[in-house]
Amino acid sequence: MTVDPRFYTPLGALTLGQIAEMTGAVLDGDDTLSVTGIASAANAQVGDLAFLDGDGKSTPDISANARLFVTNEANLGFVPEGAAKLVARFPRYVHAVAALAMYRPRHLDWTGEARISPDAQVHEGARVSPGAVIAPGAVIGEGSWIGPNVSIGPGVQIGRHCQIGANTSVFCALLGDHVTLLAGARIGEAGFGVLAAPDGQRDAPHFGRVILQDHVTVGANTCIDRGVFEDTILGERTKIDNLCQIAHNVVFGRSVIMAAFGGISGSVRVGNHSMLGGRVGIADHVVVGENVSLAASSGLFRNIEDGETWGGTPAKPIRQWMREVAWLQKQANPKKNG
Amino acid sequence: MTVDPRFYTPLGALTLGQIAEMTGAVLDGDDTLSVTGIASAANAQVGDLAFLDGDGKSTPDISANARLFVTNEANLGFVPEGAAKLVARFPRYVHAVAALAMYRPRHLDWTGEARISPDAQVHEGARVSPGAVIAPGAVIGEGSWIGPNVSIGPGVQIGRHCQIGANTSVFCALLGDHVTLLAGARIGEAGFGVLAAPDGQRDAPHFGRVILQDHVTVGANTCIDRGVFEDTILGERTKIDNLCQIAHNVVFGRSVIMAAFGGISGSVRVGNHSMLGGRVGIADHVVVGENVSLAASSGLFRNIEDGETWGGTPAKPIRQWMREVAWLQKQANPKKNG
Amino acid sequence: MTVDPRFYTPLGALTLGQIAEMTGAVLDGDDTLSVTGIASAANAQVGDLAFLDGDGKSTPDISANARLFVTNEANLGFVPEGAAKLVARFPRYVHAVAALAMYRPRHLDWTGEARISPDAQVHEGARVSPGAVIAPGAVIGEGSWIGPNVSIGPGVQIGRHCQIGANTSVFCALLGDHVTLLAGARIGEAGFGVLAAPDGQRDAPHFGRVILQDHVTVGANTCIDRGVFEDTILGERTKIDNLCQIAHNVVFGRSVIMAAFGGISGSVRVGNHSMLGGRVGIADHVVVGENVSLAASSGLFRNIEDGETWGGTPAKPIRQWMREVAWLQKQANPKKNG
Repeated sequence: MTVDPRFYTPLGALTLGQIAEMTGAVLDGDDTLSVTGIASAANAQVGDLAFLDGDGKSTPDISANARLFVTNEANLGFVPEGAAKLVARFPRYVHAVAALAMYRPRHLDWTGEARISPDAQVHEGARVSPGAVIAPGAVIGEGSWIGPNVSIGPGVQIGRHCQIGANTSVFCALLGDHVTLLAGARIGEAGFGVLAAPDGQRDAPHFGRVILQDHVTVGANTCIDRGVFEDTILGERTKIDNLCQIAHNVVFGRSVIMAAFGGISGSVRVGNHSMLGGRVGIADHVVVGENVSLAASSGLFRNIEDGETWGGTPAKPIRQWMREVAWLQKQANPKKNG
Repeated sequence: MTVDPRFYTPLGALTLGQIAEMTGAVLDGDDTLSVTGIASAANAQVGDLAFLDGDGKSTPDISANARLFVTNEANLGFVPEGAAKLVARFPRYVHAVAALAMYRPRHLDWTGEARISPDAQVHEGARVSPGAVIAPGAVIGEGSWIGPNVSIGPGVQIGRHCQIGANTSVFCALLGDHVTLLAGARIGEAGFGVLAAPDGQRDAPHFGRVILQDHVTVGANTCIDRGVFEDTILGERTKIDNLCQIAHNVVFGRSVIMAAFGGISGSVRVGNHSMLGGRVGIADHVVVGENVSLAASSGLFRNIEDGETWGGTPAKPIRQWMREVAWLQKQANPKKNG
Repeated sequence: MTVDPRFYTPLGALTLGQIAEMTGAVLDGDDTLSVTGIASAANAQVGDLAFLDGDGKSTPDISANARLFVTNEANLGFVPEGAAKLVARFPRYVHAVAALAMYRPRHLDWTGEARISPDAQVHEGARVSPGAVIAPGAVIGEGSWIGPNVSIGPGVQIGRHCQIGANTSVFCALLGDHVTLLAGARIGEAGFGVLAAPDGQRDAPHFGRVILQDHVTVGANTCIDRGVFEDTILGERTKIDNLCQIAHNVVFGRSVIMAAFGGISGSVRVGNHSMLGGRVGIADHVVVGENVSLAASSGLFRNIEDGETWGGTPAKPIRQWMREVAWLQKQANPKKNG
């Protein structure tokens, strides 16, 4: 995986020996081997450090190009033959320490008085309201409007004819044309991930991006987190209501509609033209097909095929759910059956 | 309907002929007829363009003064005799195109460096914190406090002794006296509406307002959307908790109480002194009477009469809901019944 | 109770006679007695005014040091012998009027042009982004980053190596070291409380604080309200996801994890290492033990012992809840049982 240097300053490569020294991990391999990047095991390329954790009972998805690992004892057997490995009780922690030593989010160094950085590119046909701040490396396209008290982070790319509502914040993100963010939307914050470390739980660092394609609309105070290593993506013309939560690594197709209070956990996929009612929740890694409808307040824990309509918690086909609701009402209220 | 020129710049009237040309709609009527306003069919006055869409199976509510329509084939029969009509596959889209050519939200042209516009009226007895921005045409009354990094949009009227918390945004809105907005509240954003257009789905434009009467309190990060053509209204002393969503065209009476995560869909009515528990959801167009109580987590899809107490999803009278919960527990756990 | 003068300006003591005159309450006691503070009845010290309201059917928790009361007729019998008392129809209102005359939140007087107050202490090793505003009396520690358009209120203490995300607001709060707030978090707003007054319902004023201990993380657009008289506290390494609501007087232990849309009502206690799934709701005053797990979408109305796993609404032990879900599905769908 390539960490986007527009958003993260590369601090240089580390050797496996250095990482062992920084973290106390035990190295099985050449300590001069160079770690030039970070990734999940599934997407690691040559030079990337990957990690394997958990109880070792399920086979992890590992890229054929992954050669550098940090793993716990339980996952030792999954490390490909010939690969170098650091072994530690908390491999995710070791990986995080290495990652934070290799990349630093640029916004943590954004300081000073310049409301609109001289190193930002704001098209002369864009309109910027009072109080908006635009960081170095950001690009604002023709015809776009940046509302008052907006925060546009370092390197953020905003296309043409976008509307960025008041008091929104946009970090680590690429926006297409005609994208609308309503007031208070939070684009590109770190996602929620808690990892075990020797001194207790820590936040999992995030090195991915948010990508909003053309004509995407994001409602007021809605949050869309950036990916851990990969990207969080909303496809063209997808429309999200107010006060929704879209976690790291989620991918929505085109023309998805999601009503208020929708909550989408990490790595969920939702296909084109699917419709999610108000207060729908979807558990992590679930895959939803195209043209699916989820009734309001559904709590979904399983994959759904194209064209299905589901409801309830745990969600099931809508006719089954309605049958259960009706049956319970009838059975529990015998007087009404006379 | 009159679009409030404090919030929307009138760009001038259009003829039916011009609208037909802009959108490809087929005109049945005099192409020199002037469209001087926009409205829903239910509230259209002379000169307003109204629209009829949907499958034509239910009779739309049409104002006796409506004389200019855009409709699809399915609704042709509902157009009053003698009225002029534009016919199109996507009438809501044609209406939106015309509306956007006739009115432009003033905030999209709010630019520049002046934190407090010289064209705003801030009472000398008001207090404004650092970082707050106040747009042209806004009025701030005596004794009101505007917190840091607040965004007050063009033409917004704020009464006396209001407290506008940090980082809030207020657009297209009229606030009475003693109104309190806690930090991050979003007042007057466009509501969530997706309309079909020839090139895919689009956002429905909004031309209404938000009206918050005296002594209304709005919690932190709560969103209250402005109306589509009419207004979203909260009556006197209504109190809304944090992280709630109130959609376009909703009308709350006096002294309503709504706890956190409440979600109220478009055009809902809630009567005086009703109490909505945490995480209550109400489907669009539902009418709730006065002195109604809705238990926490209720999902309401039907109208409720005055004085009722309901709970559950779908919501039903509270005793019926509790009977079902208890019956299910008893039946499914036979060992506990011994 | 001591109201923290860093956040609330003391306006001076009142006599019982003055309070009677301001509110119409009837005094039974010496009208020259001085009220030097305010508190709940449970925590009142000498000189503090406490209140007793409700229907008088349950025995209130009253501090042995409480000597000054405002009460309604129904609670007269609970006032300790020899204590002075104001008697009124709306004792909570009388108490609020007195409290607001004795203490004023400093942020309501924060005005002017100075983005970073000369009376704030910002460590030279801290980094402040453009648009951030820092009030008089605030302290920012070494190595901390204050994001763009952040609002730091009067007297707020922020430790070392904290990250305060874009567009957040922090009032009436003490933050330890290594605390992270993601964008749009709302720390220290007044909680939701509605009290009865002669002219209708009013907001209950809040005089407490928010305390976030070392390594706490708070997600984007999450709200943590300050206490009414006491504090709202999150223990070390507690991690809160986006769009959560934590009400006044809540106390979380160490290393608690709460996923998105969690809603915690007033005065709830949650023990160390407990895990709350997405969209969990907990009713006010509930006590949750250590190492408890609550499944996503649980609605909890009862206390839970250490180590339990519960789910459902109303929440119950997870096996019981799953049994009910499975039983209902089987009974209502007989064809699937063949």
